[in-house]
Amino acid sequence: MAIRVGIFGYGNLGRGVEQAIRRNPDMELVGVFSRRDPAKVKIKTPGVSVYSEDALVNQEVPMDVLILCGGSATDLPVQGPKYAALYNIIDSFDTHAHIPEHFADVDAAAKKAGKIGIISCGWDPGMFSLNRVYASAVLPGGTPYTFWGKGVSQGHSDAVRRIDGVLDARQYTIPVPAALEAVRAGKAPELTTREKHTRECFVVAAEGADLARIENEIKTMPNYFDEYDTTVHFISAEEMARDHAGLPHGGSVLYSGVTGADSENTHVIEYSLKLDSNPEFTGSVLVAFARAAYRLNKEGQCGGRTVLDIAPAYLSPMSGEELRAHML
Amino acid sequence: MAIRVGIFGYGNLGRGVEQAIRRNPDMELVGVFSRRDPAKVKIKTPGVSVYSEDALVNQEVPMDVLILCGGSATDLPVQGPKYAALYNIIDSFDTHAHIPEHFADVDAAAKKAGKIGIISCGWDPGMFSLNRVYASAVLPGGTPYTFWGKGVSQGHSDAVRRIDGVLDARQYTIPVPAALEAVRAGKAPELTTREKHTRECFVVAAEGADLARIENEIKTMPNYFDEYDTTVHFISAEEMARDHAGLPHGGSVLYSGVTGADSENTHVIEYSLKLDSNPEFTGSVLVAFARAAYRLNKEGQCGGRTVLDIAPAYLSPMSGEELRAHML
Repeated sequence: MAIRVGIFGYGNLGRGVEQAIRRNPDMELVGVFSRRDPAKVKIKTPGVSVYSEDALVNQEVPMDVLILCGGSATDLPVQGPKYAALYNIIDSFDTHAHIPEHFADVDAAAKKAGKIGIISCGWDPGMFSLNRVYASAVLPGGTPYTFWGKGVSQGHSDAVRRIDGVLDARQYTIPVPAALEAVRAGKAPELTTREKHTRECFVVAAEGADLARIENEIKTMPNYFDEYDTTVHFISAEEMARDHAGLPHGGSVLYSGVTGADSENTHVIEYSLKLDSNPEFTGSVLVAFARAAYRLNKEGQCGGRTVLDIAPAYLSPMSGEELRAHML
Repeated sequence: MAIRVGIFGYGNLGRGVEQAIRRNPDMELVGVFSRRDPAKVKIKTPGVSVYSEDALVNQEVPMDVLILCGGSATDLPVQGPKYAALYNIIDSFDTHAHIPEHFADVDAAAKKAGKIGIISCGWDPGMFSLNRVYASAVLPGGTPYTFWGKGVSQGHSDAVRRIDGVLDARQYTIPVPAALEAVRAGKAPELTTREKHTRECFVVAAEGADLARIENEIKTMPNYFDEYDTTVHFISAEEMARDHAGLPHGGSVLYSGVTGADSENTHVIEYSLKLDSNPEFTGSVLVAFARAAYRLNKEGQCGGRTVLDIAPAYLSPMSGEELRAHML
């Protein structure tokens, strides 16, 4: 019998999860749950219904894992513990500073209910976190680096959209090639924020808007842009739709460390992602870890987990024997 | 109290493990064991003794984990099960075709003794295996690639050394740049053995040896060279000592897969290693997993394991709280 999966929240990420489930024959989508009017939510999987949040609370649809696809700011801190009390859950909570408290909340609820709750799953946090931990455990005392992009930052795009006179905006985060090359060469450089990434904005402005003022407001925006070299391009709505409709992203976790009696040998580890669709890749990671959540709970385990707590074999549909014969 | 580690076998890998232990303050080398005369084995860690194999069999030195640093052809198939009956062990068994039977042997012995036995740990098998499993679980149906090099293949170097008239040899395995680039671009090319790697040999020949015959014997050697484009350079013993003393290696595990309703989005995952010293990096991986072996056994677990069966958190000296706060 397939692993029965529910999706709560049908934005970009929920749609990415839906696509990923289709590519895993051992998994089955049993329902999409939404706070919007279910009648107005059209999904892509034939034969699967859309339900209100009440149906989740009332456990109307039997399922093995619920994938929470809400936002980290206000949705997941509430939904994580609430639904870990009812289902095995998994989320992509990505506010790094608040991970410890979110973990504690989900852990307590999941333990009490005898369920598994995996938080902060995706690529950063997620696949990048795994690589940070593997690298630093293998080469203690080395230097870690994370580069993001080239890719669309939705948070930065939203920040630009909030400026007066801006109709639409897309912000790309771009690693500085010289910085990447120095790290790859094992030089372990010290890099400032400005030396690691540049930012490039494509902006559709309202007719008659003061473009110089908009550009200045972007470049000087605290936290988002003031510590970076930023380029601003004003384009038409047509150009935005034609050239910037996708949500590509990616990046690299690099780590360099030394070994040898005199630290004479340098080693560089790099994990890189080039993603045409950030939400579809994130959804794919969530689905692989949903398989792990189901299996862990079936073994009788419960409580909070992160990607760091889960042996890789739990993610694969292959058995231990198959993995040893074909994948080691 | 530090984790007490023993090393059995003091060749390149054993010396690499010794160096790695020094960089992990929670670990302590308690003894090096050798089949050579212990009086003739000089190690680099002050205050640590060298013992005969008898001392291992008689359990003369209390330890938490024994790291087996012998060869895969004849040493490890015997030593793995033999010492898993007495200690938590870990090895770098790398004959891919025989992993299932080696696992079964170590698993049976370790279960019976209540110990943990981790096999096939290093970078391939090891870190590369982890990345193959993570990538294929996240993007099912994608295309995996493994490239090795640029680096010294000890097996191929040994094969050249066995040719009549060859005094010394070093063989470098080199990925074909065009193949790597096509994979990185997400083109998922079909590649023959010849299209993926070239081989470059540096050979010191005996005086008066027939160089054309040696070159021909190398290039046509079945399994080792006949399916590759191989370049042969004859050099002096001085040049060999000056330019080819190191054991650098590395490589990349690449994986490309698609998502989306019409498979319209391509994703490329790459894990790359650039290693100045193959045995010191492999030793560093073994030591990180030795920490896991100790912890798993302390929890009461026993039996055979591979890197795929071990949650990443077990490798790190950090606690779960520290990992969630700083590494996710």
